[in-house]
Amino acid sequence: MQFYDDATIQQHYQMTDAIQDIKLLLKELNHVSHTERLVIPTGEGSQSMLYMPSIHFGKQMGMIKITSITPQNPTANRPTTQANIVITNIQTGEHIATIDASYLTRLRTGALSAIATEYLSRENAQTLGMIGTGGMAYEQLWGNIEVRNIQNVILYNRTYEKAIQFQKYIQDRFPHLNVLVSDNVNDLVVQSDIINCQTQSTQPVFNAKDIQKGTHINGIGSYRPDMVEIDYQILPNTSHVVFDDIEGVKKEAGEFIKANEEKIFCFEDIYGNLKSLIESSDLARSEDDITVFKSVGASYYDLAVALGAYHCLQTSIE
Amino acid sequence: MQFYDDATIQQHYQMTDAIQDIKLLLKELNHVSHTERLVIPTGEGSQSMLYMPSIHFGKQMGMIKITSITPQNPTANRPTTQANIVITNIQTGEHIATIDASYLTRLRTGALSAIATEYLSRENAQTLGMIGTGGMAYEQLWGNIEVRNIQNVILYNRTYEKAIQFQKYIQDRFPHLNVLVSDNVNDLVVQSDIINCQTQSTQPVFNAKDIQKGTHINGIGSYRPDMVEIDYQILPNTSHVVFDDIEGVKKEAGEFIKANEEKIFCFEDIYGNLKSLIESSDLARSEDDITVFKSVGASYYDLAVALGAYHCLQTSIE
Repeated sequence: MQFYDDATIQQHYQMTDAIQDIKLLLKELNHVSHTERLVIPTGEGSQSMLYMPSIHFGKQMGMIKITSITPQNPTANRPTTQANIVITNIQTGEHIATIDASYLTRLRTGALSAIATEYLSRENAQTLGMIGTGGMAYEQLWGNIEVRNIQNVILYNRTYEKAIQFQKYIQDRFPHLNVLVSDNVNDLVVQSDIINCQTQSTQPVFNAKDIQKGTHINGIGSYRPDMVEIDYQILPNTSHVVFDDIEGVKKEAGEFIKANEEKIFCFEDIYGNLKSLIESSDLARSEDDITVFKSVGASYYDLAVALGAYHCLQTSIE
Repeated sequence: MQFYDDATIQQHYQMTDAIQDIKLLLKELNHVSHTERLVIPTGEGSQSMLYMPSIHFGKQMGMIKITSITPQNPTANRPTTQANIVITNIQTGEHIATIDASYLTRLRTGALSAIATEYLSRENAQTLGMIGTGGMAYEQLWGNIEVRNIQNVILYNRTYEKAIQFQKYIQDRFPHLNVLVSDNVNDLVVQSDIINCQTQSTQPVFNAKDIQKGTHINGIGSYRPDMVEIDYQILPNTSHVVFDDIEGVKKEAGEFIKANEEKIFCFEDIYGNLKSLIESSDLARSEDDITVFKSVGASYYDLAVALGAYHCLQTSIE
């Protein structure tokens, strides 16, 4: 049994690795087994333990992601979400590694947005609007700039000071970017080619009327039926709506559940899952089309990055 | 995150610890949450991954046991069952330890038989008959000799040579015991005060007609509906039938499922679970009574020994 912590994984496994590994896994998805995630409530509200197993029969490797959700943690300066992955060789039955999965979870979610942006946004997209600058934001930004030639980033956060802190953080890491903070989300929306939302809002974080032609939207924040992040009034005006996992979105993504209930949008109207997106030979997206990607996560995406990172670590570290 | 391997746990956590920790947990069982185990088949027959989570709300600690079952492993000199436990502090959400659980699983199963023997066998029991001398046998014997003044041990195994090897193994460890190997299971049955069965047989491993008055029987081998270990014709002649977990036995223990179907025995006729056994103030067992304990395992027993071993390791190792 080997153990790898977040810091070690961050050194050896990057956004481009995650994007590549997820694309590969999507092509092999018929060799992957996963069950619904198991949830045990452990306290008030959303405090809980989540268990997400998945197995790659082609590679004869399996994993389970064990996640604790502790909403009161930020007041004690601890993260809300803490994740760990145990990897098992299913051919020999040996449990071969325990790896921190907090960075990997953020990275794979960034990679999912990256893949959506690569296929759904305009190729000449230059301005990225980021709504929400919390724990998931850095890897979301990273994913987008790996796949498009982003020049300008506009940040919006409910608490303005946190957006300012994040501006400094990313400016240090990506000095070539022109990073602005806006205190008005409408200004961000009208100027952005790509809008990336990472909030836990229960109200739409933008107004659908402000969305310009040709905009691509990624929504990765809402993960409960009571959450609404994307203004779902935009959905009738879109050309392509893509989910990371339709079964997950139907159960968890509040704005899509409501849109479907209110008949503003039907789940049957989606273009497809991420798998169909990367396998489509002709997307038929025109310059003016508005496109939407929604992610709630699924255990096979964790499997992709867990096995990918483990492989990288094995080959990089003597 | 700390990691402890089997060898380290074996040094610091013994049968008496496990017995004590399981008794304590049974008294606190209303503070423990557990779900049905999640099973993902990974190959032919019983090859699979098993996931068993459990949470102790009183201690604010949770764990999941991750078990691989690889039936073809013995031909490659690897164990069929390989288990690992991840322990989480649910108050802080921190994943604090990954511990090998192969020894702990054998130990807790031995401790379950020990508790049953302590409450259900005659106090003057001196002769222990062991049917099956495979991977689980050592801790089964160990459990029994912790709670009764056993003088004689009779071993029976389908493959005689393996019983001879096991005889040598336990004679080295417990030189005060008089250990015999029998090639005739009936001889073992008529001479034993306690019969402990640990096989994966699909046929009864003894004949009910041979069971003497006053005998106590532990059955820990059968864990699938197609398995039959205890000859269930004995059940109408018993005074007390006790399960480790009735829900588990109803789903998994082949001989009890069949006995119930054939109306030889009703699940409603059991004396109770192990919890009711240790909480009973008056068992009303007479010298001639025949008693039966059946174990299939449950995640809260793993929780008991996982938290117990973790605590022992924390206090023993600087």
